[in-house]
Amino acid sequence: MTRSIDFYFDFSSPYGYFASTRLDSIARHHGATVRWRPILLGLIFPHTGGQPIPSIPLKWEYGARDIARCARLHGIPFRLPAPFPISSQAPARSFYFASDHEPERATQLAQALFKAYMVEGRDISSPEVTADVANENGFDREIMHNALRDPTLKKRVRSETDAALARGVFGSPFVLVDDEPFWGFDRLDQVDRWLATGGW
Amino acid sequence: MTRSIDFYFDFSSPYGYFASTRLDSIARHHGATVRWRPILLGLIFPHTGGQPIPSIPLKWEYGARDIARCARLHGIPFRLPAPFPISSQAPARSFYFASDHEPERATQLAQALFKAYMVEGRDISSPEVTADVANENGFDREIMHNALRDPTLKKRVRSETDAALARGVFGSPFVLVDDEPFWGFDRLDQVDRWLATGGW
Repeated sequence: MTRSIDFYFDFSSPYGYFASTRLDSIARHHGATVRWRPILLGLIFPHTGGQPIPSIPLKWEYGARDIARCARLHGIPFRLPAPFPISSQAPARSFYFASDHEPERATQLAQALFKAYMVEGRDISSPEVTADVANENGFDREIMHNALRDPTLKKRVRSETDAALARGVFGSPFVLVDDEPFWGFDRLDQVDRWLATGGW
Repeated sequence: MTRSIDFYFDFSSPYGYFASTRLDSIARHHGATVRWRPILLGLIFPHTGGQPIPSIPLKWEYGARDIARCARLHGIPFRLPAPFPISSQAPARSFYFASDHEPERATQLAQALFKAYMVEGRDISSPEVTADVANENGFDREIMHNALRDPTLKKRVRSETDAALARGVFGSPFVLVDDEPFWGFDRLDQVDRWLATGGW
């Protein structure tokens, strides 16, 4: 059985986006696969006192700089989008819809949504924009747009987020390797090492 | 003129301690020196909504694990002390006293205080214990113990913390290289690179 690691992220999280550009190749290097799991940090923050970075000026002054610096250092295409942050309900719902109906293309859709927001500055909080991006990636626009209004999918995103929270997830990116938790883009080197060695 | 980098830390911060074991050699490698600057996060958190990690159970469950795992990965001697966290008034005051009177031994004292707390579990929030550690490192115990009660030193620690805050410092460790800010033990590789390249 192929080993699998769990990748929790919010579509509005730059560090989550950075991780999304690296994690598959790290896993593949160790014969593992990545289970992508978008969540809503907005549902988790009330449990942790967490806040979107831009809401604290002193931290955001640093955060905006660190995000841009990390992108340059790692050669990851990125332009801080506006508005930022956004609600990531629409892209999260579209991912789970894709995951249920065309699982082999769900990851590609997630990558396209991240790119649309984090590189091209398209506001994927809009169901219209998310449906457009899905359509550009081979999904039927009308079906996807309708799905984004489906209460079942809304519940699905909430239950996935609750399940993540129950596993100790409180940020983005958050990776679980055999239940070993790693928080942050700056822990991917440890994820790599953990996959290689089984721990230390 | 020798290039100098500023190293802000709280004596109660494990990641600050980890950075303290690495930063001097990173700087030396690039012909730079490190200006050690203990601060009190307790004075900074009200400005940022920050909290000691253990106060949020979900984050602390992860944090305790990450701290221990980072120590093992980097081969840094460490045992989570109890009590944790502590007020770091006494060690911070002792550092600035040393820095004013025997500057060439102030860094050594800081390292000894970190070791006393983070490796040996001695409660350096106690002026008695801090004076003991200072004494073991060549400082007169009585003079140091008296200095820890000196209101001038209390003000000094506050003004150093205020000055740090004014430069954008809000966590520990926090390193400034030519005013370029780096927050966290996991940014020391970027500090290293910034010193080598002058930025990217």
